[in-house]
Amino acid sequence: MKTEYKCLECALSGYTRLVEKQDIPKEKKDDLVRWFFSYMSGIDLSTPAPFIARDMHAYLRKELNCNDLYAEDKLNDNNKIMNMLPEFKEAVKNAIHPEIAALKLAIAGNIIDLGTNHGMDHSQVISQAIARDLAVDDSARLLTAIKNASNFIYLCDNAGEIVFDRLFLDTISELGILDKSNVVLAVRGAPIINDVTLEDAEYVGLTRDYHVISNGDHAPGTCLKFTSDEFNDAFAKADFVISKGQGNFESLFSKKDKQIFFMLIAKCSLVADQIGVDVGDMICKLNDTDAEIN
Amino acid sequence: MKTEYKCLECALSGYTRLVEKQDIPKEKKDDLVRWFFSYMSGIDLSTPAPFIARDMHAYLRKELNCNDLYAEDKLNDNNKIMNMLPEFKEAVKNAIHPEIAALKLAIAGNIIDLGTNHGMDHSQVISQAIARDLAVDDSARLLTAIKNASNFIYLCDNAGEIVFDRLFLDTISELGILDKSNVVLAVRGAPIINDVTLEDAEYVGLTRDYHVISNGDHAPGTCLKFTSDEFNDAFAKADFVISKGQGNFESLFSKKDKQIFFMLIAKCSLVADQIGVDVGDMICKLNDTDAEIN
Repeated sequence: MKTEYKCLECALSGYTRLVEKQDIPKEKKDDLVRWFFSYMSGIDLSTPAPFIARDMHAYLRKELNCNDLYAEDKLNDNNKIMNMLPEFKEAVKNAIHPEIAALKLAIAGNIIDLGTNHGMDHSQVISQAIARDLAVDDSARLLTAIKNASNFIYLCDNAGEIVFDRLFLDTISELGILDKSNVVLAVRGAPIINDVTLEDAEYVGLTRDYHVISNGDHAPGTCLKFTSDEFNDAFAKADFVISKGQGNFESLFSKKDKQIFFMLIAKCSLVADQIGVDVGDMICKLNDTDAEIN
Repeated sequence: MKTEYKCLECALSGYTRLVEKQDIPKEKKDDLVRWFFSYMSGIDLSTPAPFIARDMHAYLRKELNCNDLYAEDKLNDNNKIMNMLPEFKEAVKNAIHPEIAALKLAIAGNIIDLGTNHGMDHSQVISQAIARDLAVDDSARLLTAIKNASNFIYLCDNAGEIVFDRLFLDTISELGILDKSNVVLAVRGAPIINDVTLEDAEYVGLTRDYHVISNGDHAPGTCLKFTSDEFNDAFAKADFVISKGQGNFESLFSKKDKQIFFMLIAKCSLVADQIGVDVGDMICKLNDTDAEIN
C-alpha cells in the first residue's frame, strides 16, 4: 500500500512512544528522536510503512542494546488470551456456526497491535466479535479454499492474536474443514514491535500441532524482497495465502499474482479507505487477484 | 510550556496538512516534507512548539512564494462569525450576566484554530459556550482587574475568534467595566497559520475602536525574544495581560513576573494536563504569578 504523509505521523508516534518508555536519560532519548528525523529526511517518502518501521526498530534495538523491546508486552498478551481460552472455546462451541465464530475471533484478535495508535479497547473489540458482522465477508470463499487446498500459508501477526489463530485452525480442523498438514504458519524472523516470532509460536503451543516457519525478516509486515528463500519458496508454492493484520496488508496489498485473503481490523483511516470500510471494521477479504480462484 | 514528543507529531501533522493542500507536484511536496525532517533533526527538541511552527511556516511561505498561506481560511472565518454577530449579540444581551456570556464566547471562539488537529466541531463548541461552565474560572478576578486597570494588553489569536474578542470588549465597555482607551490589542506581525494580523483586525473593525498594535513577529504565540521593542514595551508597561489561545499559553506559561489571564480552549492533552482540565474545557485562568494581583 502507498505510504501517505499520515503514515509518517503514525511512524513518529510509535517511535516516540517506544523511546519515551525507556529508562534512559532525556538527552539519549532526544538523540534517538533526532535520528528518526535524520533518517526520514533521507528516505523515499513513498516507502511502505512496514519498511520504515523495519529500519526504525532495527536502529532502536541496536542503540538500546535490546533484542526484543516488546518482550514483556508480548508475554502479557499471550498469557492474557491463553488464560481466557476456555471461555472463548465455549463461545465458539455454542455458536451456530463455530467456524465463523472462530474466524471472527481470529480477526478481532488483530486489535492487539502495539504498532498503531488506534485507541480501540482490546477487550471490548474481542468480546463483541462473534456478534458482529464482517464489513467485507469473503469467509465462505476462504473456508472453501481451505477445504480444497493441498497447501496454503498463514501469515501470523501479533502476540495474543496468535492464540485466536490457533483456536480458529483447531476449530476448522475438528470440523473436518482443515487438514493441519496442509497449512504452513509463518512468523517474523526477529522481534519487531509485538509481532510474533518462533519463540512466541512455541510459547502458545502452535509449534506442537502446526508447521511453523520463520519468514527470515524483521519487518512488521511481509516485504518479499527481504524475506528468506525458505519463506519465499513456501509463499510461491502455496495455493493461496491468509494474511493477518494491517502490516501484512500494507506490504502485500498490491500483489495481484496470488490469491490472498486479508483478515484484519481496519485500524487507521488510510487502510479503511483503501478497503472501503470504516475504522474498526472487521474484514475477511480476498484480494483483487489475477490468479485463479479455487 | 515544555515541548513533549507529542508536540512533534502535531507539528508534523500541521505541516503535512498544509503541504498536501498545495497545488504542486508530489515531488515538490516530498521535498518540503523532507525539509521538515531535516530541520527537526538539527533542533533542540525542547524548543517550545510555537518556535518550531514559526520556522516551519516561514520556510513554507518562502518555498511556496506565498506570504499568507491561510488568507482564504482567515477571510472565511472572519466573515462567518461577522455574519452571525447579530445573533450572538442578542444571546449576550439576553444572558443573566452579559459580561460572562461574552467572555465565554471569546473563549469558545478559540476553537477556530487551524494549527492544531483537535477534531472538535467549531459550531457546536461556540453554540454551547454560554450554557457551559468554565473548567477554571478566574473571570471575576479578570473583570475586577479590567475595571481597576489603567492599561492592559490583550493578545489576540485567531481569525473568527477576534470577532468574539470585539464582542467581549464592546460588551464590557457598554457595561462600564472597560474604558476602551485602557486596552492595547496585539496581533501577529506577519501571517502565520490562521493567527490574526493588523489586516484581519482592520477587516473586522477592531482598529476603528481600539488601539491595535503588531507584535512584530510571526510565531503562532508570543515569543518575547522575537517580538518588537514597541510590543515588548507595551507588554512590560501593562498592568496585566490577557492571553488568548494555546500558542500564547505555550509561549507565556512559564512567565511568572507578570499577571497573565489565559483565556483558551484546551485543545490537546498536554495543555489540558498542564492546566489540570480535560481536552475541550473552557479556561479563564490567572497564571501562578509572582506579581502583585490587583
